[in-house]
Amino acid sequence: MKAEIIAVGTEILLGEIVDTNSAHIARQLPELGIDLFYKSVVGDNRGRIVEVFSRAWGRSDLTIITGGLGPTDDDMTREGICSVLGEEPHIDPDLEAHLRKFFVGRGYPMPESNLKQAWLIPSARALENPRGTAPGWWVERDGHVIVSMPGVPTEMERMWANEVRPELERRTLDGVLVTRTIKTIGIGEGSVDEMARPLYGTPGIGIGTYARADGVHLRIGAKAPTREQAWSLIRPVEQEMDQIFGNAIWGRDDDTFEGVIGDMLTARKQTLSTMESCTGGLLASTLTDVPGAATYYPGGIVTYWTDLKIDSGVDPGVIEEFGVISPETAEAMAKTVRERLGTDFGVGITGVAGPDPQEDKPPGTVHVAVASPDGAVVHLSMSMNSGRAAVKRRAVTNALLLLRRALLAEA
Amino acid sequence: MKAEIIAVGTEILLGEIVDTNSAHIARQLPELGIDLFYKSVVGDNRGRIVEVFSRAWGRSDLTIITGGLGPTDDDMTREGICSVLGEEPHIDPDLEAHLRKFFVGRGYPMPESNLKQAWLIPSARALENPRGTAPGWWVERDGHVIVSMPGVPTEMERMWANEVRPELERRTLDGVLVTRTIKTIGIGEGSVDEMARPLYGTPGIGIGTYARADGVHLRIGAKAPTREQAWSLIRPVEQEMDQIFGNAIWGRDDDTFEGVIGDMLTARKQTLSTMESCTGGLLASTLTDVPGAATYYPGGIVTYWTDLKIDSGVDPGVIEEFGVISPETAEAMAKTVRERLGTDFGVGITGVAGPDPQEDKPPGTVHVAVASPDGAVVHLSMSMNSGRAAVKRRAVTNALLLLRRALLAEA
Repeated sequence: MKAEIIAVGTEILLGEIVDTNSAHIARQLPELGIDLFYKSVVGDNRGRIVEVFSRAWGRSDLTIITGGLGPTDDDMTREGICSVLGEEPHIDPDLEAHLRKFFVGRGYPMPESNLKQAWLIPSARALENPRGTAPGWWVERDGHVIVSMPGVPTEMERMWANEVRPELERRTLDGVLVTRTIKTIGIGEGSVDEMARPLYGTPGIGIGTYARADGVHLRIGAKAPTREQAWSLIRPVEQEMDQIFGNAIWGRDDDTFEGVIGDMLTARKQTLSTMESCTGGLLASTLTDVPGAATYYPGGIVTYWTDLKIDSGVDPGVIEEFGVISPETAEAMAKTVRERLGTDFGVGITGVAGPDPQEDKPPGTVHVAVASPDGAVVHLSMSMNSGRAAVKRRAVTNALLLLRRALLAEA
Repeated sequence: MKAEIIAVGTEILLGEIVDTNSAHIARQLPELGIDLFYKSVVGDNRGRIVEVFSRAWGRSDLTIITGGLGPTDDDMTREGICSVLGEEPHIDPDLEAHLRKFFVGRGYPMPESNLKQAWLIPSARALENPRGTAPGWWVERDGHVIVSMPGVPTEMERMWANEVRPELERRTLDGVLVTRTIKTIGIGEGSVDEMARPLYGTPGIGIGTYARADGVHLRIGAKAPTREQAWSLIRPVEQEMDQIFGNAIWGRDDDTFEGVIGDMLTARKQTLSTMESCTGGLLASTLTDVPGAATYYPGGIVTYWTDLKIDSGVDPGVIEEFGVISPETAEAMAKTVRERLGTDFGVGITGVAGPDPQEDKPPGTVHVAVASPDGAVVHLSMSMNSGRAAVKRRAVTNALLLLRRALLAEA
């Protein structure tokens, strides 16, 4: 089945917002055996919308459209589909009733402009949208399918999961692409590529390497009639890679540093606390992105001001002698929060997020320390040449990396 | 000047990573007077890369390509450009020397596969990449330009800012599109649209409404020969909107809630502290995304465990009586952190991030409280039907919204 994805919206074309919907959908097409050949973006322009929709209708079996279903004049996805199919829209009484009920529930009157969200055409059936006012459309004619969903990610994702994906799964698949991602850390992309090269020839297998913030990923892909057959091609290659990369492999597929660390702590019934300065709570927030983080993470302190570091128990003498931006202060923060919150591990981060220097240390200077149950403390110091947001993000990634090292060492 | 953007990479096509580069570039083209007509993504497939590049070379004056410049076999952007132009690559001695120096600096040997990052073709000049090993290409022939940049955002963004954008600015522009975004809160998109409708007819002006997490945005766009002329079209419309929406307008263009709040606090020389449970530090991290946040934000406490809330000074009686997930506990947290850290304002957040319920409260239940200098406390309670990450994000947005209200009330 040949598919393409179209995102509608001038805001997306001009990059005022990033289109995450296309990625969300594209990620799931391979396992459905659907080949994605094109991804494109079109602005809120009637002519260009019709042009792009007709080309898609002509060349693809399945066209997935997101956005342009709002109530305003510059929401033209419905109008575009009508033109391409040459069908006239009518207001569907059930949809209208449902729409008016929605507004009653919200307690304010429905602007008449919203009425077009109750449109249907002969070839379209409505897709439920419990999270918003715009229903989607499943349009089918002459062996072509157009799926139209709202652009608001939470609305789109639910409609995709509950209405669209199940329907696509029901349609027979001629072959399935299964992928396995192996995540390594501590080796450059070129070297990972050379180490994995002996496996590149493996029949039925495709291998790619990708440099990421959390290390270099190896992606093994296999296409076969069934998932089982695809997996039987992937497994031996994966085992070879385990041999080649050993401990440099920290995770697979959707694994994250914070998730892997959470699993290690949960398995060992150990706990963790944090004291952050320049990352301003991003480490705590990242740790608590993991469901069940409460099992091993009681909490942490964001000590943005030096006074608050001292009030929280950090020895002023250390700060006095070595400065706030120093490995010694990071170590004192890690030890202090570990003792104070009574956890097995403690993490301390201090540095300069920027844009201005601090204590004559340039922006991007960051010191991380992890205190372990056995009293050992490991350090990591880095100096990054990037913006404030990136400095915070990378400092957190490196803190998690250091934490994993401490957990491996302590095991 | 007709432009298109092409992102290269199977990982992007399959949505394993989201392409932020295209948005970053697209956002800046209008002010350069460059019309963006197409945005597309192509996988690491030689045939399809050549097909997409040739179509671009044929129909666009300027083609901006990101990705596919890595050292591995599946990085084929250079090869693709060579095929389209029918030019043979050679290894440029300066680029090779620079490349080898880079690896010496990193302290490990250069894999020979990296050598193709020293390639040039007759129509191409290299674009410096101080953040990585892959230089970009500025390719120019027969009145067409191809700009090829690395896919790693930090490398791409620097190359764009220092090499590509300045060169594009030097080329004369026939017209400039200026946009002004007005950000409102508390009014639905349909109503905002109806309230702004009288202005839609304004000659030379385009107006769009966009529903966002931080409210409904109105985008005023004007195209004119010069920036001044464009602004003279926008200004009167903007003044009308100030009249129509008044206090519902909280910001413009790149303004963020956290930035606007930071400006208010800085102007009043007031301070703020936070005690978070279900958002796990995301509020602190969001506040400290603002450069200069240290002026008004000493820090906060992430009290993920109830014990830690109590150790931090929250009255156990309140938790006992009303439960951890309650407006009363949120209020106690806000007051406690405000007193404890000696700030003018204090924010407390408690709730259920999910996926599991807590105290029989469903996931997505969140209570926020803001304590003001005059002793007043404002509340906001919400129940969201979305995933863990979205619950955290929206809880923070609502906390900032409540904080703005408290600041306005206290003024």
